[in-house]
Parts: sequence; structure tokens; C-alpha cells
Amino acid sequence: MSVKQSRGDFRSDNVAMVEPSIMAALVAANTGTQPPYGADEVSAELDARFSEMFGAPCRVFPVATGTAANALALAACLRSFGGVFCHEGAHIRLSEGGAVTAFSAGGSLLPLPGAGGMFDAAALAAGLEGAGIGNTQRAQPDAVSVTQVTERGRVYAPEVLAGIGALAKQKGLHFHLDGARFANALARLGCGPAEITTKIGVDILSFGATKNGAMSADAIVVFKPELVEPLRFLLRRAGQTWSKMRFAAVQLLAYVEGGLWLKLAAQANAQATRLSRGLAAIPGVELLEQVDANIIFAKLPPATIDRLIAENFHFYRRAEDTIRLVCRYDCPAEAVDGLLEVAKG
Amino acid sequence: MSVKQSRGDFRSDNVAMVEPSIMAALVAANTGTQPPYGADEVSAELDARFSEMFGAPCRVFPVATGTAANALALAACLRSFGGVFCHEGAHIRLSEGGAVTAFSAGGSLLPLPGAGGMFDAAALAAGLEGAGIGNTQRAQPDAVSVTQVTERGRVYAPEVLAGIGALAKQKGLHFHLDGARFANALARLGCGPAEITTKIGVDILSFGATKNGAMSADAIVVFKPELVEPLRFLLRRAGQTWSKMRFAAVQLLAYVEGGLWLKLAAQANAQATRLSRGLAAIPGVELLEQVDANIIFAKLPPATIDRLIAENFHFYRRAEDTIRLVCRYDCPAEAVDGLLEVAKG
Amino acid sequence: MSVKQSRGDFRSDNVAMVEPSIMAALVAANTGTQPPYGADEVSAELDARFSEMFGAPCRVFPVATGTAANALALAACLRSFGGVFCHEGAHIRLSEGGAVTAFSAGGSLLPLPGAGGMFDAAALAAGLEGAGIGNTQRAQPDAVSVTQVTERGRVYAPEVLAGIGALAKQKGLHFHLDGARFANALARLGCGPAEITTKIGVDILSFGATKNGAMSADAIVVFKPELVEPLRFLLRRAGQTWSKMRFAAVQLLAYVEGGLWLKLAAQANAQATRLSRGLAAIPGVELLEQVDANIIFAKLPPATIDRLIAENFHFYRRAEDTIRLVCRYDCPAEAVDGLLEVAKG
Amino acid sequence: MSVKQSRGDFRSDNVAMVEPSIMAALVAANTGTQPPYGADEVSAELDARFSEMFGAPCRVFPVATGTAANALALAACLRSFGGVFCHEGAHIRLSEGGAVTAFSAGGSLLPLPGAGGMFDAAALAAGLEGAGIGNTQRAQPDAVSVTQVTERGRVYAPEVLAGIGALAKQKGLHFHLDGARFANALARLGCGPAEITTKIGVDILSFGATKNGAMSADAIVVFKPELVEPLRFLLRRAGQTWSKMRFAAVQLLAYVEGGLWLKLAAQANAQATRLSRGLAAIPGVELLEQVDANIIFAKLPPATIDRLIAENFHFYRRAEDTIRLVCRYDCPAEAVDGLLEVAKG
Repeated sequence: MSVKQSRGDFRSDNVAMVEPSIMAALVAANTGTQPPYGADEVSAELDARFSEMFGAPCRVFPVATGTAANALALAACLRSFGGVFCHEGAHIRLSEGGAVTAFSAGGSLLPLPGAGGMFDAAALAAGLEGAGIGNTQRAQPDAVSVTQVTERGRVYAPEVLAGIGALAKQKGLHFHLDGARFANALARLGCGPAEITTKIGVDILSFGATKNGAMSADAIVVFKPELVEPLRFLLRRAGQTWSKMRFAAVQLLAYVEGGLWLKLAAQANAQATRLSRGLAAIPGVELLEQVDANIIFAKLPPATIDRLIAENFHFYRRAEDTIRLVCRYDCPAEAVDGLLEVAKG
Repeated sequence: MSVKQSRGDFRSDNVAMVEPSIMAALVAANTGTQPPYGADEVSAELDARFSEMFGAPCRVFPVATGTAANALALAACLRSFGGVFCHEGAHIRLSEGGAVTAFSAGGSLLPLPGAGGMFDAAALAAGLEGAGIGNTQRAQPDAVSVTQVTERGRVYAPEVLAGIGALAKQKGLHFHLDGARFANALARLGCGPAEITTKIGVDILSFGATKNGAMSADAIVVFKPELVEPLRFLLRRAGQTWSKMRFAAVQLLAYVEGGLWLKLAAQANAQATRLSRGLAAIPGVELLEQVDANIIFAKLPPATIDRLIAENFHFYRRAEDTIRLVCRYDCPAEAVDGLLEVAKG
Repeated sequence: MSVKQSRGDFRSDNVAMVEPSIMAALVAANTGTQPPYGADEVSAELDARFSEMFGAPCRVFPVATGTAANALALAACLRSFGGVFCHEGAHIRLSEGGAVTAFSAGGSLLPLPGAGGMFDAAALAAGLEGAGIGNTQRAQPDAVSVTQVTERGRVYAPEVLAGIGALAKQKGLHFHLDGARFANALARLGCGPAEITTKIGVDILSFGATKNGAMSADAIVVFKPELVEPLRFLLRRAGQTWSKMRFAAVQLLAYVEGGLWLKLAAQANAQATRLSRGLAAIPGVELLEQVDANIIFAKLPPATIDRLIAENFHFYRRAEDTIRLVCRYDCPAEAVDGLLEVAKG
Repeated sequence: MSVKQSRGDFRSDNVAMVEPSIMAALVAANTGTQPPYGADEVSAELDARFSEMFGAPCRVFPVATGTAANALALAACLRSFGGVFCHEGAHIRLSEGGAVTAFSAGGSLLPLPGAGGMFDAAALAAGLEGAGIGNTQRAQPDAVSVTQVTERGRVYAPEVLAGIGALAKQKGLHFHLDGARFANALARLGCGPAEITTKIGVDILSFGATKNGAMSADAIVVFKPELVEPLRFLLRRAGQTWSKMRFAAVQLLAYVEGGLWLKLAAQANAQATRLSRGLAAIPGVELLEQVDANIIFAKLPPATIDRLIAENFHFYRRAEDTIRLVCRYDCPAEAVDGLLEVAKG
């Protein structure tokens, strides 16, 4: 379905174009020869650039997809009989085809409950309580993973993450953050990347860029040194080590250059805020989650949803009367206005 | 090491730039929105285009690396207690970090001997003879894999591949071809892609493009329908299913458009032929393998190798007196001439 | 804790002795030499004996534990991206250390709800409905597993199993039955083994013997021929193929000889019936599940539980006021009487 | 093939009966109730008994087969991208159906050459040299495994093992010893178990008992504490944790009681020595390996081999003119005399 036929494409932020300056950077990087597999001059800048950005030394490993970022980051954290606590609705648990289990050679997803796709230290403590630590019949907790922005479009408050981080450290769990929409969370919180990672105990981060303007580059950012060595080998055997790595690295450098990533995320969030407020003002329409970033879950009269579809707006219909709308960085204001107009009827 | 400082970069063909028309196609494809994970309009063209090209219906799955192509193609072929016959020096056996074993959950590499990185039907028959079929102590043969162009730079004659294919079919083995340098083989043989795939019984192909001008796109081409279903799931759980798949697909379409891929491979082969002939003419230099495509293994006086390094030529030194030289599609004639001049001393 | 110090050991049926006639058979079999790995004369009788018993041709593979039986039986049924429907409280899901996932190289447990540890065809249908068949983000259903006797001590009616079997067949799912307490179920139902296996579509059975009088022998009984070949190899690589297999086979033959297994199970069930009726008659005591076989879940006043412990009765305390009692084949009537007496206070 | 029809069964030592005193111990242990999974009173004696025997604190985990002992011991040592050095003819590499790779989730067997199934520190050093340590394309060495008695019937000198152990320690490799015929090696060397384990740096031992008189009990003996924790979980998920573990433990205790194990091994070795000397004295017969323990590889005239078969002697024929003979602890002197007589012709 291409945009020419669509009055508004709200299916996901991954339907977007590559942001022009990132594409320009790819073109500009296409000169001369470079050694393969990350030994090139562009990749050499990644660690320094991200370490500065996160205010702590880190290693950066570009990968082609968010699933690869999550599954390999966690594979470096889990023993084959280990498990990772995550929200029961987490993408790693429901939407990645068992990648975490596959790459960790048998690791388990240990679900925790919580509203808005969020859990807190208390829920983690309860999970640890019931985990059967030391009992060989049960998977042993090795890590905890939070998604920020959550799958329900909510943004964790830094204090909540700090609470989880403190407990994780105390219990010897690796702390992973699935940041497929990391920039959208920062744009919402108005804080720096360190505030919700290095400063609150995150050990390893899935750094999303593709959903917010890149072409095919997310990254695993490793803050805990002991996770670097296994990850290097897991990445290679996973076929995630690009031979022309410079073209992954350059996407990531252009993405963060001059705060581009935060600007793009702010644009997406702003349109989602406008759209959600407009929808909330329509009689018969109900927002199912607080809209913290660029994802909206809304309940509408089925007839209204049918009309939006007939009028060539695109989104995911989750039920007869329920839809999910995602605003991307390049979502036109007209698309938002148009959808609201049709929804008002 | 960038080309400005180098008088000639012969380390590998993966040090090359993205071929300009492929980069242009990426830029041109960057318009509008498209559904993710291969449901886009560009990806939709892949199967038809490749089926026409191979003269048989096939399914095409883009992946980010050759390791992913090989390991996932073979994972679709192998049972966890299965094995794949390959040359003892095969890339899948020595250079991919155990990816085949990992993705096939325990599958084995069953090595066969042969000069030039090649084996034939007789060697495969001998391997089957000694494999202990039915013996639960031993891995059970499920597939055979050949590399064309081989790791030693040789190109299999179609008849030899046909012999392997016939035996594979007779013995119920899936037949995989690692075509990391598939175009270079075709350019050498002067035949069409079907001659060394569909017509001689290849079931699944690792179709290389990155080494020959693409940015980050190789593909798994599936000719045997039963392998498609498992592969779809293995790709997703492997994190190889790009969300913005159109940018992988467009690289592959541009790569084969108007025979570009064969033209680029012919350029690389031609420079390698010139280089190898020039080297062979130098007293004290010996070619260690017949040069069929774009890879040269040569024995030189150590002092000559030292001089080439001092003169800022780049290649892999395999031993005190042994080097590997690879000519890429954009290898300048001057680099070849320059190297020969310095080698002559 | 040995029986001399205990007035009654109700912790599990696996605390029991080896039934004397089974031990006698082991002693009697200890003569001469026999080839290893199941090629012996005793093992040779297994298939015929069980095929006759189940009224259908089957293959029998002895294993050392129930976990091995379940995990390897299901590993033969599951693709690495496959899943098996089971009750949310199933032993394979909660109590076997991830064995199914490990042996199936990534297979998933797909939980279904239901009272008494049982689910029915409707619950399976609902599970299939929501499984996302064809969706590469989700595990694909390959099998369904029921536990008979269930983990809650209930026994499925044959009609309910038949309903599950019919749906499994229609949907192309392998049907596995975890029969750790298979004999106790038959003793309860008063039917033959075929009634709840071959006649209702069971493809592969975990045949328990250890809990009901054997020393260290359960078995995988395969009714669907296509599962035999993979299982042979999975067993060997799992280290479950005994070199002196005759001593596993002889336990199984002695176990079923002359209906011994059903007699032993009937004894266990009878004591559990007496015990549960006696408990139910005590004011303040409540049975938490209908007692169909030899397992009792009961709610008692904490003081009563404390008294039983003080009086040297052994069982698992699941909560302050909740206990699980299991009667084994050799549970003395005095132990039951004694416990009831103390419980009455 | 049972002994009544055989004049001598030399196929393997695992064709033997259970040694009578071990069977008697099983019968004697069959009293009262005991908690499952190794929490029983008999299992409680294992660690103390073996720690005393090996002169160092150790943990003992009974398993049902030697394959389980080897594969799980090594799974505790290997990372998924790790490898274990072993002889190219090692049982773990050629005869266990890929168990090490399966249980270690992808670990590799790194073959070393050497006569008689033995390698030394120099061969290990060469292997490390060529292993590509740090290279993500290659499996990373995590362990080294030696077989004592070797698959060729040779016994390593303690100094040779000490050399391997010293290098392993220096290079940070775990040191595993496959002791399927451990007692036969000790009987040959006339030294205590510590001399070829704890005193020369062995970290984990596969302790064989089944081939030398037990029914179904080998053990993993762990000397390096850090390997205990992962092993506990790997054993459970592997289905190797017997519910009635006391009957595995009692076999091991009876096996070592009063030096029984060494006496039995000495008997086997003595018959093998007689047999090999007798064979060597026959014109046209050649011993292919020095006979250090209870295994003989011999070259005989094909006609002689045919005659032995016709005369109802049993052994493995490895080639037209090559046989393997194994003497078990209960090999009758008459069988040896008879075979020699027929061989002499």
C-alpha cells in the first residue's frame, strides 16, 4: 500500500521513508575501500560517539533488526537454563518468533503483569519470589528486560526504571532495555539518554533507529564490559556482522548527529498528541491508553472505523471497535487533520 | 585503511563501494510509505524477477549477510541430528562461527576432500559410504553444499555439479549452493544462472550480491517448495526479516537489472586474469591455484611481499611467502599495473 | 527421611520401594551376555508385548525418567519454531527445567486453561484460534499434550480425550499423552489402555512405571510410525540409550506381567479414596479437587497440619492451610488410618 | 546373542552381567521410602565417599549412560560458541550422536591427532596455536578432553596427562577426563584415582561403572566448584535426574566398596593380556595396538576370522582382516583359551 493511495498511513512507524539526511550520509560514505566486519573508519567512530552521548564507556554493535538486537543482547545475558523477566505483553515474548529462546539456546521469558505494558520493582520482586531460585525444575532468573516506549505506548518514569535497576543489581540480574522507540521516550521525558540507561543501571540496550528514520540499522549498546566478549561471537554466528559494516555505522552516526533522532521523535510524538486529543474530543471515542509517545490505542464506533477505512486511512484494527494508530517522524499534519475530520463524521 | 592511502586494495571484494546505480536505486526507492517485513511493492517483484531469471519458479528471501544466507538455507534442510556434506575448506565449516550448527540446532558439517576447494560425485559417494546412515551414533546426511566460486578461487564445471546433483537427488539429500561469488562463476562460465542451479538439481541457493556491488543484501533463493515454510519462520526468529525490507529488495533488483551483476563480475574477473598472468610471468612467483574468477593465491619471495606492503598495497598474507589477492568489480587497472610493477622489482 | 522414622510418607509415589517382583525380575535377568543399546533378547520382547497390550503396533523406547520420556517424545513432534498445547499447570511446562524447549531446540509450551488440570477440545480450539498460525512472529502449533492422571489428581474421561484427539487429527497436531500415572488412570476408569490411547488418536505416549513400582524405567511408546526415526536419534544424542538396556526392558515387562501394574495402581487409588473420604468427613477439612486417583489436595486448619507434621507424617505443604498427599502402591492402610486419627484430633 | 550359544563374547565390556555384589546391594537398598531426585540417604553418602577416594572435595552426579556423563560434563564447560579439544578418534566426537554439541547448544569438537588415540601437551599447544582465538569466525577453546583408557585401548602415562593439565590450566581450559574405563586404567597403572585426576589438574570426570560391573550407573565427578551449579540444571533439563536416585547411588557405592572396581578391572585386563599374548604368538596374527588394558585390535588372516565366527566366538569385525576384542570383568579363562585354540587352527 503506497502513500499515494493513502490519505494517512498509521500502521506503524516502520512504514516510513529513510530520513533524507541519513540517506545523504549513506551516499556520502560510499567512497573508497574499507575493511569489512566493522574494522572500517566509520565504525571506529561509533563507540566514542555513543560513549560521549551516554556519558559512560560503551561498545556499539549495529544489527539489521530490532529482533536481532533484543535476542542477541539477551543471549549474551542468559544461561541456557536461564530466564529473563519481561512484561507479559513484551515484544520479545509475543512478537519475535521465539528469537530470545533460540539465540540463548533454551532461555525462558518470565512474564510479569502490569498496566500499560509496564511493571515495577514490586512486580519484579514478586516474580523473583515465585521463580523457584535454585530449583532445578525451573528456569533461573538471569536478566530483566523493560521496553521503553512500551508496547502499549506508555513511557516509564525514570524513577520506576531506577527501582527496577536497583533491584536487578541487588539480585544479580542483567538489566536490558528494549529501546525500539528509545528516542520517542527521551523526547517525551525531555531528559538525556543517560538518565534512563547508565544512571539507573541498564547493562545493555537495544537502540532503535530504523523506526525513527534509519534504513536498516538498530544497535546493541553494551555498558557492562563482561557482556561484550560473548556478544562478539554470538553476532558473528548469527550472521549479523555486515561485511560492509560502514553502511550500518554511518546510519547510526547520522541518526544521532546534531540531535536529529530527538527532533524526529518529537515530531512523531507531537502528531500523536494532536491526533489523540482530537480523537478524545469526539463523542463515542475512547482512548484505551494514555498517549505518552507516538502510539495510540483507541475505541471507536465500528461504523466510524469502517468509514476511516473506506476513506483510505491505514492502521491496524485490533477488534471490531478497536484500532492502533502510530505516528511516524514524517507523519503529515494533513493526515492527522484528515483522519480527525472523517472520524468526526 | 581507506583507498586514498592505498595503491591497491586486494584484501577482499567486500572492501568495495556500493555500485553507483545500486545506490541510486536506494535513493529512488525512498518515497512514500510501505508495509514492513517484505509485504511492500518492491519486494513483491523479487520472486517474479528471479523466477524468470532462473527459468523456474522460486522464492527469494533477502538477508543482511552471506553467513545468514548459508546458515538459514541449511537450517531449513537439516534435522537437529542431520549433517551437510561440504568441502573440508568450505566457508560454512571454517569461517562462519558455527552458524550452520547453531541455526540447525546441532547439525553437523561433514567434510569432503578435493583439490581447489572442489569435490565431485565420487567424493560425495565415498562420504555417504562412510557416513554410518542409520547408525544413531553418527550425524545423518540431509544435504550437500557446494561453493561456487570455491574458497580457493576455482569454478566448478556444470557437469561436475550435475553429477553431485544427480547423486544428491538419488540419495534424498537437499542440494545447497553457496553462491557468495555466484556472478563471478557465471561470468567465467559464460552460461546462464539456470545452468548451474535449477538445471542441475540445486534446491536452495545463497545468492551473493554484497561482494559484487550491493550494500547489505544477499538472498536465499528457494527452488524446492517444501523448504519455504520452515525458512519463513527461521528467518523471523533469526532477526533477518527487515522491517523496511523494500531497501533490501531494491538492491537485489538493481543488482540484476540489465545484467549489471554479470558485467561487474566480468570486470573483477578480467582484472584478476591480468594480475595473475602478470604475476605468473615474474621469476620466483608461482600461482598456487588456477585463477578461474577473481581470487588469486600466489607464492612470492618474502622480500617481494615485504616490498608490496611497504609500497602500500593491501592483501592478506597467509604465510611468509604466500598471499591471497582478490579483485573487486571496481578494481582500477592502475592498481593491477602498479602491483605488478612493484612485484617485478 | 526413611520409613522407620515416618508414620506415613505421602510426599509422592516416587518415594516408594521397587515392587518385589520387579526386583526379582532384574535379578533373574542377570545372566549371560547380551548385546548393548536395546539389541538384546529382553528388549526384543517389548514391542510385541506392548503392541498386544495396546491393540495396535507400536515401538517402545525405555528411558530413565519421565522428564526424558516427555521431552524426547515431544522433541520428535516439534519443529524448532513449533509449539505444543498443554495445560497451564502441566508438568512439562512448570516442572521439567525447560526440557521440552531444550530437546526441541526452541519449541514452545502453549498454555491452555481448565479446572482440575484438564482442558477440552473447546479450549484447544480457542488456543488454535489465537495461535497466529502462519504468523512468523508466533510459535506454530505442532502438537497437543494431555496429562492423564493430571497434575491436580483428576482423570480425564475417555470422551474428553477423544474430542481432543479428533481436533488434533483434523488440525494436523501430534497428540501426546503424559502418562506418568497412566496405570492409576486406567485403574480408575476400569478400561483397557487402548481406550485412552490408540482408540482416541494418541500418537505418542509417555508410559510411566517408576512411580508405580519400577526402579528406573519409564518408556516412550510410539504409535505413529513417522515419529520413530527421529526419536531413535534424539534418544542416542540425549544419552538415554542404556548400554545394558535389558535391565530397563525387564522392568517394563515385569511391570505389566499379569496385570501387575493395574493391581498396584488400584492399591494406591484405594488408599487415596479411603484417605480422602476420611479427611472430607473431618470438620474444617476441605478437599480442593475431586480425588480420581492417588493424589489429594486438601485444605486443613493450620494447627491440624502442624500436628500431623509433629506426629511424623510426611507430605508437601503447599500453603499454610494446604497440603498435597499422594498414596503410593505400597502405602500401608495403617498410615492412612493413623493420619486420619491424628487429623481428627 | 546370549552366552549359551556363544563360546566367547568379546564384543564389548558392556555385554557383561551386573556384578553379583552390586545386584545384591540394589536388593538390599530396596527398603522403606526415600525422597526423590538425590535427596535420599544413600545419595548423601556419595560425595563424602568419592571425596575421600579422590583425596579432594568433589560432587558426584549419577547418570544413566556414559554419553550423558560426557556430554553434560562438557556442556557445563562450554559456551555455545566454545569448543573442546579431543582426539580425532574420541568417542565424544565419533560415537555419541553429536551429544556434546546438542547439550552445549552448539559447541564444537576440536580434533587433535596422535597415535593410539592419545595426544600430548605439544599437540594441544599446536591446536591452540591454530584455533584462531579471538577470531569470531572460529569456535573458541573452552576445554580439553582426554579418554583414559583410550578408544584404541591405550593407557596414558600420568606424566602425559600432567602435561596436558598444566597447559590447560595455563590457557584457562577446563580439563575433562572421559573415564568410561577409568578403573581399567588405574588397574594398569597401579596408582590411585587421584594420581590421574585431582593431582594433575582434572576439573571434571566421566566416571564409568556400567562397563565394569554396574547395571546402569555412571557418574559425573566434579572437582571444580564453579561447574557444579550449571551442571545441576543441565542434568534436570536433560532428564538425567532419577526420581529413585538411591538405586543409582547404591550401584556406585557398591562398585567402589572394598576396591571391587579395581579388582574387576584387573580381571578384565589380565584376560586381555593373556589373549593378546596368545594371539601375538600365532603366525600371521599382528596386534595393531599395544594392549594396555582390556581392548585388543588385531590383524588376522581372513580365514582365521571366518573360522572364529563359525566356531561361535563374538567380536566386532572392523575389516576383512581386522577385529576388535574386548575382555570384560567376567570373561571366562576358557573363552580366551578356546579362542586362541581355534585361532591357532
